[in-house]
Amino acid sequence: MPELRKDPVLGSWVIIARERAKRPSDFARRPPEKRKGQETCPFCYGREDQTPPEVLAYRPGEGEPNTPGWSVRVVPNKFPALDHRAELASREVGPFTFLSGRGVHEVIIETPEHEASLVTYPREQLEAVWRALIERYQALARDPDLRYIQIFKNHGAVAGASLEHPHFQLVATPLIPPLIQQELDASYRYYTARHRCIYCDIVEWEERENQRIVEKNDSFLILCPYASRAPFEFWLLPRRHKSHFFLLTPSELRELAAILQEVMRRLAASLEDPPYNLMLHTAPVDLEAAEYYHWHLEVIPRLTVWAGFELGTGVYINPTPPEVAAKFLQVSLRDIH
Amino acid sequence: MPELRKDPVLGSWVIIARERAKRPSDFARRPPEKRKGQETCPFCYGREDQTPPEVLAYRPGEGEPNTPGWSVRVVPNKFPALDHRAELASREVGPFTFLSGRGVHEVIIETPEHEASLVTYPREQLEAVWRALIERYQALARDPDLRYIQIFKNHGAVAGASLEHPHFQLVATPLIPPLIQQELDASYRYYTARHRCIYCDIVEWEERENQRIVEKNDSFLILCPYASRAPFEFWLLPRRHKSHFFLLTPSELRELAAILQEVMRRLAASLEDPPYNLMLHTAPVDLEAAEYYHWHLEVIPRLTVWAGFELGTGVYINPTPPEVAAKFLQVSLRDIH
Repeated sequence: MPELRKDPVLGSWVIIARERAKRPSDFARRPPEKRKGQETCPFCYGREDQTPPEVLAYRPGEGEPNTPGWSVRVVPNKFPALDHRAELASREVGPFTFLSGRGVHEVIIETPEHEASLVTYPREQLEAVWRALIERYQALARDPDLRYIQIFKNHGAVAGASLEHPHFQLVATPLIPPLIQQELDASYRYYTARHRCIYCDIVEWEERENQRIVEKNDSFLILCPYASRAPFEFWLLPRRHKSHFFLLTPSELRELAAILQEVMRRLAASLEDPPYNLMLHTAPVDLEAAEYYHWHLEVIPRLTVWAGFELGTGVYINPTPPEVAAKFLQVSLRDIH
Repeated sequence: MPELRKDPVLGSWVIIARERAKRPSDFARRPPEKRKGQETCPFCYGREDQTPPEVLAYRPGEGEPNTPGWSVRVVPNKFPALDHRAELASREVGPFTFLSGRGVHEVIIETPEHEASLVTYPREQLEAVWRALIERYQALARDPDLRYIQIFKNHGAVAGASLEHPHFQLVATPLIPPLIQQELDASYRYYTARHRCIYCDIVEWEERENQRIVEKNDSFLILCPYASRAPFEFWLLPRRHKSHFFLLTPSELRELAAILQEVMRRLAASLEDPPYNLMLHTAPVDLEAAEYYHWHLEVIPRLTVWAGFELGTGVYINPTPPEVAAKFLQVSLRDIH
């Protein structure tokens, strides 16, 4: 079973996933962009038996589970970082704290088309992906052992994607991750002091300043954050203050898909389809709707390498000011072509 | 001038290095292992004029500054992340905090031999490198504007090295980096509660348990930490409790070089010379010798990619338990060959 271990000094956590244990020989160097091709891809039509049985699928026509014909398909990760069968248990041994690796790790296959991507498939497809994410989120949120559900997407081998067929991932953890806890704590302190949400204040400030806004519509705003950790980092912030993402209305879902695709297309066009990580930041499952927290998406293109300075200090060096990045991402594809 | 920006929510810092500003076209994809070869390397003999003038060099024979003949050479980084000419200034604009990018960024060229490395040059060479690091650290520590000096080494392009000629780096910052502050705070709380140093306790526990120890000598211990963030991560801990690293005696320097080289050689032999980051963790320059903090080295091989889950949560997934990693690193080279 995987296990969660707490760093005795920093209090941060790691997941030691013994099931994924690798011997030194398994780390032999491969060309970083070499990925499983379409010929053997377990996420393509006809290979549904190569994944664990699906937990959700949208099938526009008829069709049996775990057969072709789906438009979006959700399956448990074959090599999960956490295990749903683990008993929740905690232990202290000497200076060390241990928590059993209870959790869920699922893969949301965005489309049956291996060569498609978030920037090429239709907007309706991205809306369906988000509907599937919400559906799985709400199903897992009922499990009292799971305290946080992290939704993310890795695009490109440099960003950690091991399969190229487009997919999101979802990892449900038995603890609130430290980065989310830090955001919650800081937002709570800000709210307590000023009775305002810090993210609402940032949205208001950025719209007024108009230095780092990339794109906006009635429901969302995309900006390059003031303290961007990486070149072309951008955040998608909902205008409507909500701590939980899953309350999106159908029209908001449409607007989310539209603005995210538009900016992702600009990123892909101007930077040769760069590798990136996309992360949802939302409130913990057991938190009631909170005035102080504001869900959002963060996208980090992986164009530079975080090295010894970043790993040693927690301070990131970013060569591209967000004001410059925002200007590039403001240029619509119409103007590029 | 570069600038330091504080994330309004997390309170973390980034360095926006405008001097290194890149347009999208500068991020065009290159093979990751393509690095500047020996033919044009600015760190080789005869190209001393291609770096800023040296601030320190060891010259076994006679010889003018900035000419060949040196064994270790320290130069300012040509593309510094921070600038020594910046005035120290801080400003708040709306929700955002800014600090001028005052600091120092130097490169410690470990050897004149382009093809050599930390695992191939003689032990005496590594001792000389550490003497140079201490010398530069102590010189810069006299500047009252500089609060922390981060010493690190990136090996391999995947780990962020842009030049292959072996070198350490040193970045002096006008603030105490958040990761170091977290370590200081946690160590202080532990000491206040128990009147013991948490690192001393870890050393004692690990020696007794003997599950994660890789190697030891009279002055140092190398172990794979309980909550390793990455496969084959290891820490070098001094047995003698000191908060500042620069008080190393000549015999400790010898033992540091010996044990570090031995384990680095095993890492290189069993994992095909993997990319890695090496980070020194030591007390801030303006902190008196403290009972609660314990300097150490951390080495993180870059064999896996931190992706959306890690960036979104701050929780690391590590497929190789440190107990397994320690067993592999215990095998001496005599037994491998």
